[in-house]
Amino acid sequence: MKLLLKISYLGKDFYGYQIQKDKRTVQGELNTACRDLFGYDCDITGCSRTDSGVHANCFCATVTKKGEAYIDTEISLSKIPLAINSRLPDDISVYDAEWKAEDFHPRYDVKYKEYVYRIFNRQASSPFESGRAWHYPRVLGDDMIEKMNIAAQSFVGEHDFSAFMAQGSNVSSTVRNVKYASVKKQGDIIIFTVAADGFLYNMVRIMTGTLIAVGEGKILPENVEKIILSKDRSMAGMTAPAEGLYLNNVIY
Amino acid sequence: MKLLLKISYLGKDFYGYQIQKDKRTVQGELNTACRDLFGYDCDITGCSRTDSGVHANCFCATVTKKGEAYIDTEISLSKIPLAINSRLPDDISVYDAEWKAEDFHPRYDVKYKEYVYRIFNRQASSPFESGRAWHYPRVLGDDMIEKMNIAAQSFVGEHDFSAFMAQGSNVSSTVRNVKYASVKKQGDIIIFTVAADGFLYNMVRIMTGTLIAVGEGKILPENVEKIILSKDRSMAGMTAPAEGLYLNNVIY
Repeated sequence: MKLLLKISYLGKDFYGYQIQKDKRTVQGELNTACRDLFGYDCDITGCSRTDSGVHANCFCATVTKKGEAYIDTEISLSKIPLAINSRLPDDISVYDAEWKAEDFHPRYDVKYKEYVYRIFNRQASSPFESGRAWHYPRVLGDDMIEKMNIAAQSFVGEHDFSAFMAQGSNVSSTVRNVKYASVKKQGDIIIFTVAADGFLYNMVRIMTGTLIAVGEGKILPENVEKIILSKDRSMAGMTAPAEGLYLNNVIY
Repeated sequence: MKLLLKISYLGKDFYGYQIQKDKRTVQGELNTACRDLFGYDCDITGCSRTDSGVHANCFCATVTKKGEAYIDTEISLSKIPLAINSRLPDDISVYDAEWKAEDFHPRYDVKYKEYVYRIFNRQASSPFESGRAWHYPRVLGDDMIEKMNIAAQSFVGEHDFSAFMAQGSNVSSTVRNVKYASVKKQGDIIIFTVAADGFLYNMVRIMTGTLIAVGEGKILPENVEKIILSKDRSMAGMTAPAEGLYLNNVIY
């Protein structure tokens, strides 16, 4: 059996998910903790990569013995999350674990993933939101939030999202299927939620930058569809900063 | 006129509010920022002291020219918060400013203060709550939360709170008037809210430790009144850690 871990992490002090030499990464920390717990080298395979500064409320990764498709342990499943946590720093936590068949793949078997982008929308910054939301100081009224929500509906469905991909990315297909998308405000936080079968590089952050341009009145909600059809990155908005982005759910 | 600032701060990396030599404190940071902005040494007078690790959603402090009862500036009031913020680190923010008369005192003129204590109540810890809530891993059911809320009602009114004061404290009176108190659960967070005309040293943290003992079934809700009447610190619960405590509001 493979071991599937559900993990949350605060991205602030990580150079992203993927292991890199001499850099603090989520995969690197999981590697060390699992080797210490299980007593042998492990392969940690994640559901995706997240960039430096990006957070996860729910990130899925499998743990297997290095070079094998299984894990060998006497530790009961219910005790694994706490046993790993006691070997992890405070900014990562394993909150659930499951057994999965040996042919399960945490990236290829994803049906869809949900991301959340948080914007702290108050003139003064907040010490509690520093590094956890994009501070956007010009306060947007309810009418603008509604326009952003209308604009977000244009993302839903199967589209070529070339206009919402960082330039220079190299992928075989730029078509993705967005399941749902919404923008709402809770207190001082604007929350953009989007789920899709896959995401291009920087896709959620460029979508967010485009929605903010809608909120500023620089892009009309009805023009977002045209931006998608243009397949032209320069038509879409800016790339919103990493610190507001959260991988929120992974559905297999 | 005196300048009154409304401030929020994340207590994690501060040795409390009050200035101390060679330690990072909130008052110390405000001092430096105000001197830089106004161009002369200032007196910063806070509404209370908070301990190392304690947070504030709303902390009030006056700024005056050193040794004087007024501040001398050409900067318009509406621009002061951002001007000070640009000179402060990310873990403190000034979000509002008001003019006050020269006889106003930010500590003596307080009618009452509200504190909130946050308990993260899930078996696995959360990277997003580390240093911002007390992690209490044994999950308490709704029935226990209700018992804690009933117990909290015993705090309301004018009482001698000696049993809820850190031993060795030296104050002229241990009588305080609690305006309201409540315990509720929002998702994985238990929130204890309490407002009073003043608080003894560690009072909210000992109240929290006592309420957790009620949640564990070690103290019956109806016995909290007896603990108050005993004036005996050893009858009350443990002192909950600093990291869950927030000064939430100050009413003048």
